[in-house]
Amino acid sequence: MKINGPFTEKILTTFIREEIAKAGLSNGILGLSGGLDSAVIAALAVRALGPDHVTVCIMPYGRSFPGDAEDARELADKLKIEMIEINIAPMVDAYFNLNPTTERLLKGNKMARERMSILYDYSVRKRALVLGTSNKTEMLLGYGTIYGDMACALAPIGDLYKTQVRQLAEHLEIPEKIRSKTPTAGFWAGQTDEQELGLTYTAIDEILFNLVDKRLSARTLVDKGFDPDHIDKVVRLIKGSQFKRSRPPVAKLSERTVGHDFLYPYDWDK
Amino acid sequence: MKINGPFTEKILTTFIREEIAKAGLSNGILGLSGGLDSAVIAALAVRALGPDHVTVCIMPYGRSFPGDAEDARELADKLKIEMIEINIAPMVDAYFNLNPTTERLLKGNKMARERMSILYDYSVRKRALVLGTSNKTEMLLGYGTIYGDMACALAPIGDLYKTQVRQLAEHLEIPEKIRSKTPTAGFWAGQTDEQELGLTYTAIDEILFNLVDKRLSARTLVDKGFDPDHIDKVVRLIKGSQFKRSRPPVAKLSERTVGHDFLYPYDWDK
Repeated sequence: MKINGPFTEKILTTFIREEIAKAGLSNGILGLSGGLDSAVIAALAVRALGPDHVTVCIMPYGRSFPGDAEDARELADKLKIEMIEINIAPMVDAYFNLNPTTERLLKGNKMARERMSILYDYSVRKRALVLGTSNKTEMLLGYGTIYGDMACALAPIGDLYKTQVRQLAEHLEIPEKIRSKTPTAGFWAGQTDEQELGLTYTAIDEILFNLVDKRLSARTLVDKGFDPDHIDKVVRLIKGSQFKRSRPPVAKLSERTVGHDFLYPYDWDK
Repeated sequence: MKINGPFTEKILTTFIREEIAKAGLSNGILGLSGGLDSAVIAALAVRALGPDHVTVCIMPYGRSFPGDAEDARELADKLKIEMIEINIAPMVDAYFNLNPTTERLLKGNKMARERMSILYDYSVRKRALVLGTSNKTEMLLGYGTIYGDMACALAPIGDLYKTQVRQLAEHLEIPEKIRSKTPTAGFWAGQTDEQELGLTYTAIDEILFNLVDKRLSARTLVDKGFDPDHIDKVVRLIKGSQFKRSRPPVAKLSERTVGHDFLYPYDWDK
């Protein structure tokens, strides 16, 4: 679980640069929340592409979480990157005024999808690819909004657990203020990831690392002293969120189907 | 390219029913535009799930294309399914008033993503899965908005070319008025798919079928008498839209990475 900072930085900046170049572009764009993951992506993007090739969108909902928006602005200033600030309240409120709900999860999901939609709109205006900010813990647990914050053109930290992103943040000299923040999806005041998941990221990542990376069985983990309820919970979240990590299934009717046996037009240049 | 109506209906209704059951649900939801593809999905969903388990959202932008909204309403009435009408203009206008553009493609993409976001919101309210309406021609050409109309939980007609969807529509007795319509993404008045693509669907589908299903080379197609410019255009569109058919790439750092070597937690029950 311990990462090598300089090596990881090298791999990820190369990845960002190459994936963007493959699309014939040289710019990246991302949503900056004031939290850890997007701060790390912004710092990596600057090192990969240069500050003139990175745009961040700061997209608060109304005046909620003013401290986070302020931290995002400060970081963008520090990194000397273009910052676009768009308040999502007019669009989100226009929707819920006509389609009311008391479910805060519905509101959070709508906000996440509005931010995605704005990022994709500006990605065209800026000729940039959308850099995803999901980490491996979130991806495996499905802790994110499908077609919202999970939607992107490339996922640089999708193979780093949250606790590893913290190590990388330290190496990248992300301000202590951002690094020491309690992780939250920011859907409502007082929400924290760890409270909602019912486990600390340290505990979750240790279970995930053993199950996924080390391919150990749940039984082996119990034998090693892990709490069976914790393991059950993590396994249930992984299984229940498979749809967030895969393409929508296509009903197979022909000899060659998108997502089944037509994957890449590799051999067409011959 | 000729399909067997009853057989295709059987496969696709089974697919819809089973995929929804896998999620522990029994309902489907889709956007009904007044065009051919969504009409076919609505008719299939009713046959698969029963009319009480299908909800359609009719989501016009302001008063544009009133005839299409009216045809959608009529079809929903005929199929006896629940119909929710939500005008997307308040949300879309709130955005472009603050972030103006003259690019109609940006406007169309924002509209498509707003509709996706509404469908996903109502999918939770209705405990339903979002049925995609993209066909094989659109998927291969990338003719659609990523994370917009291309986003769904399952893609029942993703393996049927547009010309095959027309045959299925006839078998399903979709009203002639809808079947004989000129296909359009509906981004702006006067837009038609075939004009924008520069080729008829009949011509496109014949090229796609030979290239993709029959695995013939572009050179063989030229020998068979196809126009080389048409082939080039189709191949260019397929290659340029690969990103719309694949998951965002994850930078590989560990022994087991989402989308690389961690795909499904198949063996965890043992």
